[in-house]
Amino acid sequence: MVTKDDYRNAMAQLTGAVNIISSDGQAGLAGFTASAVCSVTDDPPTLLLCVNLASRQNELLRANGVLCVNTLALDQKDVARAFSNHDLTMAQRFEQAQWSVRETGSPMLTGALAAFDCRIVERLEQGTHAVLFCEVLAAEAGQGAPLLYHNRAFCNLA
Amino acid sequence: MVTKDDYRNAMAQLTGAVNIISSDGQAGLAGFTASAVCSVTDDPPTLLLCVNLASRQNELLRANGVLCVNTLALDQKDVARAFSNHDLTMAQRFEQAQWSVRETGSPMLTGALAAFDCRIVERLEQGTHAVLFCEVLAAEAGQGAPLLYHNRAFCNLA
Repeated sequence: MVTKDDYRNAMAQLTGAVNIISSDGQAGLAGFTASAVCSVTDDPPTLLLCVNLASRQNELLRANGVLCVNTLALDQKDVARAFSNHDLTMAQRFEQAQWSVRETGSPMLTGALAAFDCRIVERLEQGTHAVLFCEVLAAEAGQGAPLLYHNRAFCNLA
Repeated sequence: MVTKDDYRNAMAQLTGAVNIISSDGQAGLAGFTASAVCSVTDDPPTLLLCVNLASRQNELLRANGVLCVNTLALDQKDVARAFSNHDLTMAQRFEQAQWSVRETGSPMLTGALAAFDCRIVERLEQGTHAVLFCEVLAAEAGQGAPLLYHNRAFCNLA
């Protein structure tokens, strides 16, 4: 049987992009750093992300029903740190960067390497996490180097 | 409204690890290259991956009910190419590398940066793809540099 530590140590080798999940709506502003994001299909454009059920973010996203996935550029490490800093309020986190809005009213990060403005269309729970299926209503592609996370540290491409 | 091209161009900026999904069982050997893999929860250790419904792999995985996710090291680019080469038979793909088995009987790639031997516990369809939720029965972590995919090309960490 695999232990949690075995699993976490192996998963730490799976390099990932660093994303800020941002949302606004009737429950108010929400934003956090997440790596568990992946594309599901381009017909219709749909991605998924996983959120801890024990987090306050989970309830905020559920109530708002919309979110934006902002994939960070290498020069946005400070934004990544702010959005995983539990000592900051939501307002303080969002003050660290510039934002605009597209279709859903969720904040879209200026200067992100990619951004996906989404409506949550399906939600299921698996163990400790919710999996949110999100239809993409607007997508923006930037250019430049990505901020990555590997072996529990930020890193960058050669 | 977002177009498929807008969506694909933005998603191309989301850097990902390169994985070989391998499976063996009553339906026989299956193996292909995939980037849409992410961790769901460590309690119990569970990951998910997305598979095109139109692919033969989808039916093979469904029939076998088990699979191994093998996260590639930088020196395994040839393995990545073999497992996305439609001119090769399954047997020819698997001849490109060394394999062992753990719990499920699925081939585990020798020298992978990480490997997750899994039982498929839930399956749902979203648009053109199936999303497979996989309980991890064995996990191995290696060491070294990862093979990455960004902007439609292989790349590596600095």
